[in-house]
Amino acid sequence: MRYFIVYAHPEPRSLNGALKDHAVAALRAAGHEVEVSDLYTMGWKAAADGSDFVDYDPAKRLVYASASNTAFTNGTQTPDIAAEQEKLLRADVVVLQFPLWWYGMPAILKGWIDRVYANGFTYGVGQHGGGKWGNRFGEGRLSGRRAMLAVTAGGRREHYTPRGVNGFIDDLLFPITHGVLFYPGMTVLPSLVFYEVHNFLGDTSYDAMFAAYTERLLDAANVEPIPFRSQNGGDYDDRQVLRPGIEGDAVGLAVHQSEPSVAHPTLLLRAAS
Amino acid sequence: MRYFIVYAHPEPRSLNGALKDHAVAALRAAGHEVEVSDLYTMGWKAAADGSDFVDYDPAKRLVYASASNTAFTNGTQTPDIAAEQEKLLRADVVVLQFPLWWYGMPAILKGWIDRVYANGFTYGVGQHGGGKWGNRFGEGRLSGRRAMLAVTAGGRREHYTPRGVNGFIDDLLFPITHGVLFYPGMTVLPSLVFYEVHNFLGDTSYDAMFAAYTERLLDAANVEPIPFRSQNGGDYDDRQVLRPGIEGDAVGLAVHQSEPSVAHPTLLLRAAS
Repeated sequence: MRYFIVYAHPEPRSLNGALKDHAVAALRAAGHEVEVSDLYTMGWKAAADGSDFVDYDPAKRLVYASASNTAFTNGTQTPDIAAEQEKLLRADVVVLQFPLWWYGMPAILKGWIDRVYANGFTYGVGQHGGGKWGNRFGEGRLSGRRAMLAVTAGGRREHYTPRGVNGFIDDLLFPITHGVLFYPGMTVLPSLVFYEVHNFLGDTSYDAMFAAYTERLLDAANVEPIPFRSQNGGDYDDRQVLRPGIEGDAVGLAVHQSEPSVAHPTLLLRAAS
Repeated sequence: MRYFIVYAHPEPRSLNGALKDHAVAALRAAGHEVEVSDLYTMGWKAAADGSDFVDYDPAKRLVYASASNTAFTNGTQTPDIAAEQEKLLRADVVVLQFPLWWYGMPAILKGWIDRVYANGFTYGVGQHGGGKWGNRFGEGRLSGRRAMLAVTAGGRREHYTPRGVNGFIDDLLFPITHGVLFYPGMTVLPSLVFYEVHNFLGDTSYDAMFAAYTERLLDAANVEPIPFRSQNGGDYDDRQVLRPGIEGDAVGLAVHQSEPSVAHPTLLLRAAS
């Protein structure tokens, strides 16, 4: 298989850097192809603006979504954006790997989404109008691919449980798992979250995390995905609102899954000590 | 009062730009002081990295949170970071104004959070250890301030309702309202969300939005806040997990509010047409 890891950490000598390096080595050793976009090392431009389009005219008002569509269609995106789109298209498994900063992605990774997710590429795809809302949430240009988040967090596992003070990790990540990965059609695997990473400074604990990450990636074709509901599969009505009663006992954002998770879908790995 | 608007849009001639300009003019006309951080115009550096600290040594491994604490304590943050912290400390009302991109903040604004929210400033404040988890979620260095989000979205209101296909807007924004604004102690007002902004290209519709934004800002001292539960107020146990049964009928992320919202807490403004 072909893996594509989008990696966002400013320090190569970090736990995140080591996780990424071990994963790449293990996947290649198992015969897989791996591409990595190391956003900090690449000097990825985070802020979406007019300079993302080679024919940008600052004298004219920028409507980013329109300009994005024109540039995607005409091949006038900047080369850095087009290159990342090609990597997505080549991949069988897409991984966003990052430290959780303020309950979300580091800015540099958000800026990868903002810029690479062009109009006509990941949105604005399929029929719009006439009761249709496009191909999204389960359908789209990236369908056929599997995707997942690999996240490190300084906080404790308990603080991210369904009643934990930070908010439930699956809900905090929903804007990414559902809104970024599922939106353009990818099949989303449960997120892999490593907690209390500041306590994991010993080699032995690191080894357990490297193994867990590698094992998950190697098993990506088989892992049961998050059963997000397809937009156009009949569960939502013409207004794109979930039909009454269809969610069973599910509550909150979990109503957008067709089945409850059998267990907590996020791996809750932490030190044994 | 003193308002601080952190504004993130790449095009001054946009709806967002006009909303910001009208709000600033109206607040000043009413006798208030207003500071604006226009992140694109400022060329705000989005990616948090070692160069945020004036004494950064690339030969040493960067642990961002530790370096942040040292720099905050010693006054060795870069001047752009320190200046934004001063603006936060001067403000009575803090507004993050942005277009919703991929169900979150534009990268440049996320990078403002990542860099300005230093260790020792917005986190790592108060007693940690001995059963204490610091002053956060309702307490912290920014307590006494009110804060809110002002968001424009291309999507339809219905798609962001509690059963809408995108996910409930309050849940999508929870990582920001709860995780970014409430975390360092600010009192959080309901988010002001403008939907279907691409359909609002006529002057008349714009006027209604300008008025709604201005009215909300002028009323910021009186608006009923989102009743998020204080971390240290007794609702969470020693593990920082919500005590059993305390949430009544609330479900999902709303369990972190002490009362259900009387009505949908987010203003759902759209064209009458």
